[in-house]
Amino acid sequence: MNRPQPIEYADASPPVREVFDDIKATRGVSEVNNFWKYLAADPALLRRTWETQKAVLASGALSAVVKEMIYLAVSVTNSCEYGIACHTALARKAGMTDEMFTELMAVVGMANQTNRFADGFRLPIDESFDG
Amino acid sequence: MNRPQPIEYADASPPVREVFDDIKATRGVSEVNNFWKYLAADPALLRRTWETQKAVLASGALSAVVKEMIYLAVSVTNSCEYGIACHTALARKAGMTDEMFTELMAVVGMANQTNRFADGFRLPIDESFDG
Amino acid sequence: MNRPQPIEYADASPPVREVFDDIKATRGVSEVNNFWKYLAADPALLRRTWETQKAVLASGALSAVVKEMIYLAVSVTNSCEYGIACHTALARKAGMTDEMFTELMAVVGMANQTNRFADGFRLPIDESFDG
Amino acid sequence: MNRPQPIEYADASPPVREVFDDIKATRGVSEVNNFWKYLAADPALLRRTWETQKAVLASGALSAVVKEMIYLAVSVTNSCEYGIACHTALARKAGMTDEMFTELMAVVGMANQTNRFADGFRLPIDESFDG
Amino acid sequence: MNRPQPIEYADASPPVREVFDDIKATRGVSEVNNFWKYLAADPALLRRTWETQKAVLASGALSAVVKEMIYLAVSVTNSCEYGIACHTALARKAGMTDEMFTELMAVVGMANQTNRFADGFRLPIDESFDG
Amino acid sequence: MNRPQPIEYADASPPVREVFDDIKATRGVSEVNNFWKYLAADPALLRRTWETQKAVLASGALSAVVKEMIYLAVSVTNSCEYGIACHTALARKAGMTDEMFTELMAVVGMANQTNRFADGFRLPIDESFDG
Repeated sequence: MNRPQPIEYADASPPVREVFDDIKATRGVSEVNNFWKYLAADPALLRRTWETQKAVLASGALSAVVKEMIYLAVSVTNSCEYGIACHTALARKAGMTDEMFTELMAVVGMANQTNRFADGFRLPIDESFDG
Repeated sequence: MNRPQPIEYADASPPVREVFDDIKATRGVSEVNNFWKYLAADPALLRRTWETQKAVLASGALSAVVKEMIYLAVSVTNSCEYGIACHTALARKAGMTDEMFTELMAVVGMANQTNRFADGFRLPIDESFDG
Repeated sequence: MNRPQPIEYADASPPVREVFDDIKATRGVSEVNNFWKYLAADPALLRRTWETQKAVLASGALSAVVKEMIYLAVSVTNSCEYGIACHTALARKAGMTDEMFTELMAVVGMANQTNRFADGFRLPIDESFDG
Repeated sequence: MNRPQPIEYADASPPVREVFDDIKATRGVSEVNNFWKYLAADPALLRRTWETQKAVLASGALSAVVKEMIYLAVSVTNSCEYGIACHTALARKAGMTDEMFTELMAVVGMANQTNRFADGFRLPIDESFDG
Repeated sequence: MNRPQPIEYADASPPVREVFDDIKATRGVSEVNNFWKYLAADPALLRRTWETQKAVLASGALSAVVKEMIYLAVSVTNSCEYGIACHTALARKAGMTDEMFTELMAVVGMANQTNRFADGFRLPIDESFDG
Repeated sequence: MNRPQPIEYADASPPVREVFDDIKATRGVSEVNNFWKYLAADPALLRRTWETQKAVLASGALSAVVKEMIYLAVSVTNSCEYGIACHTALARKAGMTDEMFTELMAVVGMANQTNRFADGFRLPIDESFDG
């Protein structure tokens, strides 16, 4: 098969099931989303990615909703359709309101615009930024 | 000159000075940073960009520090050296601590990694994300 | 028509047919894929692109499968859906196994993550890298 | 040497000199820029790239200055410092004025902003665009 | 709803209708395209974006068709499907012929290729570019 | 300090030193490169990143030199100066010759070019790629 295929829970090996179970318990969902079903093609990659994701997205100095919005900002900048759909849903679940979403989009759009101005005008970095 | 040149306050036309003055007053700084000095080559572009920036970055449903961190996340994803230096400084000024910075970097790195997995494995979007 | 249209072999001019024939012979396929049918809108662009592709992807210091995997790594990083589908299939045909595919994805994901860390932390380049 | 090295005319092989001579004659310059000196590490890559560049940038349905501005727009979007410096200079030489440059930047910035809105809001493509 | 939703004219508030009316009048169309219907979720974002777009895309030192082609070049480089469809249609409407389209694509492709060579070979910027 | 700062071995906490020691032993180097010194600002991020890197870059179905070249291909596509310098050096150390380097660049350039053609011409994916 040229196109990668998902691995469903029923067909998963014990190491994959163990990760799937942890994702479901941590997120309080009854089924893992496609991302994990496809990564399961390589159980070590699946486990590493999930362990990192769990550590990185846990609430810390930044709240869960802020982290999900940052995730979404990156996904939009990368034009990653799946990441946008997934992290819009996760950010909503973590508390992102309609107003927060449109403000996020406004910042993301502005940043993408001014990044190009900065490069196009070949700006030298101000000394004050490095102090 | 092939390389774009900055316009200093002393050499600026009245419409440019007016924008520079507003930037200095709004941000509480004694001098505008290079970004604005270069955009001043086109006074209409300068004014539009500043008006949008001021509206977009004002505290709203999202706080100023969250907005600056989102700006930084986009700048990092775009590999924009000036944007990274500028918005690291502005985020610091708005309250970003060392812990918030490294957590931000961790999320940005993770999102860039998993965006590529999502595209590389050609993931179909889960129906649950669109509900 | 706003949307570009493909040119099928039956409707192609002699210069386009000549390129199509060479693609089919070189790759051992009975029909060219959509990429070439759309580029055929400009016969000179079609010919140049195919000549370059043929020269660049021929086995040399790097094997065909390694070249196809590099092509796929770039396509994933660019979020190019067509390039991902096409070069997954071509890499498979050239010998990419399931294990090679998931290892490739793991490297691509890691590189996209650490590239952002490098930019975000504003790393100076180590002298040892330039020796 | 880890860092790629340029090949100067004095040290170049005959096939490299032949390409360098054609670049100098076509562009009316006394020395080729660094881009070509580094690509000369692979004479076949050098030749192919120059032949394509010469064909693509020649005045056709689009004028030379428009082509150079498009080249610059892409280089800015890719955050490619060398490409920006090089094609700003070439566009200037082909007739880009200060006003054309700032209008170009305004369009590039706007496009980068609205591309992100389009992806972030997950816009379906209007039927009218495909007619 | 996780997925953003469009706002149709019939359901729009007066400030949104005012912008929609201006878009329709300026572009001579009977209905605004999806881009504006989704941005209408935030009337201030909608207005700012339209005002900027109108100012930036108006014919000036660069003609409307050149601006639309630059917009398209950026959208292609960003792999933004909506932007590509939209600005192909708008460029066509502004006068882009088949020949102009394929020449544009040739330049965009070439620029994306040589930008990577410039970065990969770690090219120092020629002094002549900064004069 | 606005600009992130490196942590040298002499100033590192025991958990950071432990990771530094493992990097030095695994890679057979007397000092870690800047990447790790900056990530050390967050010991957990440092450890996770190194553990993943070690697992991902170990020789498996793909050899170390192929993995380093893929890493370099991604870094070039992302325009990440540090990543390019670092992984050119690591690929050289793993056996990349001059010929392998220029062939790699040729593939990376070609892929970046044709990815844009694929998006710009709005190519539908061939059924044969999904079989």
